[in-house]
Amino acid sequence: MTHSEGKIVMVLGDGMGGRDVPSLGGRTTIEAAHTPALDTVARLGASALMYLARPGQPVGSDTAHMALLGYDPFQYYRGRGPFEAAGVGLSMQPGDVAFRCNFATVDEKDLITDRRAGRIKSGTDQLAAAIMEACREGIEGVQVFFKESVEHRAALVLRGEGLDYHVTDVDPHEENVPWAQCQPALNCPPEALPRAERTARIVNEFVVRAHEVLENHPVNVSRKAEGQPPANAVLPRGAGEAVELAPFSSRHDGLRGAMIVEVDLVRGLGYYAALDVLDVEGATGGRDTDEMAIARAVAEAWKNYDFVLCNIKAPDLGGHDHDPHQKIQAVEKVDRAVAYLLDTLDFSHTALMIGADHCTPVTVGDHTGDAVPVAFYGCGVRTDLVDTYGERAAAAGGVGQISGGDALVLLRNFVGRISKFGA
Amino acid sequence: MTHSEGKIVMVLGDGMGGRDVPSLGGRTTIEAAHTPALDTVARLGASALMYLARPGQPVGSDTAHMALLGYDPFQYYRGRGPFEAAGVGLSMQPGDVAFRCNFATVDEKDLITDRRAGRIKSGTDQLAAAIMEACREGIEGVQVFFKESVEHRAALVLRGEGLDYHVTDVDPHEENVPWAQCQPALNCPPEALPRAERTARIVNEFVVRAHEVLENHPVNVSRKAEGQPPANAVLPRGAGEAVELAPFSSRHDGLRGAMIVEVDLVRGLGYYAALDVLDVEGATGGRDTDEMAIARAVAEAWKNYDFVLCNIKAPDLGGHDHDPHQKIQAVEKVDRAVAYLLDTLDFSHTALMIGADHCTPVTVGDHTGDAVPVAFYGCGVRTDLVDTYGERAAAAGGVGQISGGDALVLLRNFVGRISKFGA
Repeated sequence: MTHSEGKIVMVLGDGMGGRDVPSLGGRTTIEAAHTPALDTVARLGASALMYLARPGQPVGSDTAHMALLGYDPFQYYRGRGPFEAAGVGLSMQPGDVAFRCNFATVDEKDLITDRRAGRIKSGTDQLAAAIMEACREGIEGVQVFFKESVEHRAALVLRGEGLDYHVTDVDPHEENVPWAQCQPALNCPPEALPRAERTARIVNEFVVRAHEVLENHPVNVSRKAEGQPPANAVLPRGAGEAVELAPFSSRHDGLRGAMIVEVDLVRGLGYYAALDVLDVEGATGGRDTDEMAIARAVAEAWKNYDFVLCNIKAPDLGGHDHDPHQKIQAVEKVDRAVAYLLDTLDFSHTALMIGADHCTPVTVGDHTGDAVPVAFYGCGVRTDLVDTYGERAAAAGGVGQISGGDALVLLRNFVGRISKFGA
Repeated sequence: MTHSEGKIVMVLGDGMGGRDVPSLGGRTTIEAAHTPALDTVARLGASALMYLARPGQPVGSDTAHMALLGYDPFQYYRGRGPFEAAGVGLSMQPGDVAFRCNFATVDEKDLITDRRAGRIKSGTDQLAAAIMEACREGIEGVQVFFKESVEHRAALVLRGEGLDYHVTDVDPHEENVPWAQCQPALNCPPEALPRAERTARIVNEFVVRAHEVLENHPVNVSRKAEGQPPANAVLPRGAGEAVELAPFSSRHDGLRGAMIVEVDLVRGLGYYAALDVLDVEGATGGRDTDEMAIARAVAEAWKNYDFVLCNIKAPDLGGHDHDPHQKIQAVEKVDRAVAYLLDTLDFSHTALMIGADHCTPVTVGDHTGDAVPVAFYGCGVRTDLVDTYGERAAAAGGVGQISGGDALVLLRNFVGRISKFGA
């Protein structure tokens, strides 16, 4: 192997880590799943416990993937909005403030009756175009960009002087209440307060205009006629500021990287990091995703790139749904994808990492800050005594305990693509 | 469990961690002690190795508890004096410099014959009042506040312009020598040198005045008549500057906290952090302490607070005394307190941590920087394969290796009282 040949593949089950599940005899969903391929990776490789940010700190998919790609989230994270916007193709400039948005349904009393407008499947492009038209002149001298994403999701970008991202969500995160007024966030630095107040005012005006435009839009007239909840409101949340990230390849000594992920938020991070974000037909981001299509795409990308990151969303869904069996099936999807990669890649010059971006225990239904199990296999990996993949087994792993930011350093070390520090 | 219900209890055996003891067949005092409750916590929960500050760094009870409460001691620690002063009820203002003090006995040749004045039990309030009277006009324009604590302990606060805490101890930490002259410390920054020189001069003048006032004070006349060593000198040490700590509850998203500890130093930190510092009758801080009274007080506080920290001092005393059997008995006191808590608290919404603020091995007789064993149990804790509580067993713990500052993050994560970083 020469220095320039080593390749790295990182396969993540989104939210795959868990906690003891009483109905599974105290096992976690990983431990209860049938995972011959994941166990092979652990048995023939080396394991670790990984805290993405710091022990106990729950993280999002965005901050977790930042850490895994080598961008310290404590240093670089400025909210999810910019990644969402990038994920749907809204480009940003320094100073822009971006929001993730939901199309939602509000009733005649202005109460939110469905935060996702019945997970609206079509017509949001027309709704977004109407909103853009209504904001053509901008608001208070600030340019407005709004674009739909999949289902009820969308993104909003504000561009102009004197904006700040320390503002609260319009989305109240519950139903049967009115939408919330955007206002400066509690953590807003005093010197940013005037800008945050201005930003909040613009956001509130945007929400009112959007509601006016959407209420009687033909798309919604049709939906109501069909008995479907109209997408008659837009709820911005997750304000964030455009960040500047050094391109992945320059950050990692020329490593050419690609990303195959099912979440727009993480795809947006990929754009920011100048990774090639690849599309895979059949990768739905749902529990029905075609994991074999993803596996084939990873194997194909592996031929052309030095680094391939793959994230399969399904395990996280089972966690959020409090559904052990759904999550077990999702873990087994990850296992089948890994089995294909074990059969297909050449591990004489490739190091594989199996892991997760966070835990989403079915007993909690949300992200937790517990350690996720990690297993490394292939080129350069010093084997250890662990022979299964799972939370408990990984505690004895030969790689020890690592943070998210350590993962790529270790992988580059395994394949000999990292410079010596010192002489 | 709703987000606002989760509770956290942290039980610390002061200095409870240790090293191999040859006379115990190489076991540590924790390993040699009979600890069914601590073992239960480890068996039904998850273990970790914890370095309070960084691996190998010995810490004091003050810096250790700062870390455990979420105040990075490397950032915030400015000496123990302020905590001692707060612990005895001397309030401080920014710029004040505080010292821990001992009442001591010096002979006619000005040699210290007893650094603790026979652990004087009464009359120090009168001695302190006499010293305050002698310093009523201040020294060099600086106000002087002096107050007695338990036994031979006291605190001194200087308030005025141009002070600095980078000064050495008057207490020579040995006997049969004169008291030391206070002077700028070796680590004094050059720009602070004039202030440190002025501070040292004031301290030295204070010590002389105190000696003059105490020498023939009626309390000491009586002591001499009774054959007891007079408390005729005051030895300041541990200079520190007032620190500003964000209140515990604001630092930890509204967690209402209480502290049940036997050491004034740590109580003082509790006041600084705006924790409720609770008194327990029978908590002596000695080897005779009533651990069941402490346990009952913790269980009572658990009803009213979200977070309760409890520190039982006894194990540290056995360590400092090089006495394995005394330390084993002290560890067993901690075990009995924990047994009561296991029987009494509702762990469906409570996470318990057992640990120590540092090691005080009986083979050393002082604090060391070895890892302490930690065990978590209850709400949200993912179990591991460790089944006993102890230094060696904890190395296989499922929580891995943590620092003191991680402990509360993990506990908040277990009970679901921490915000996600990212989305």
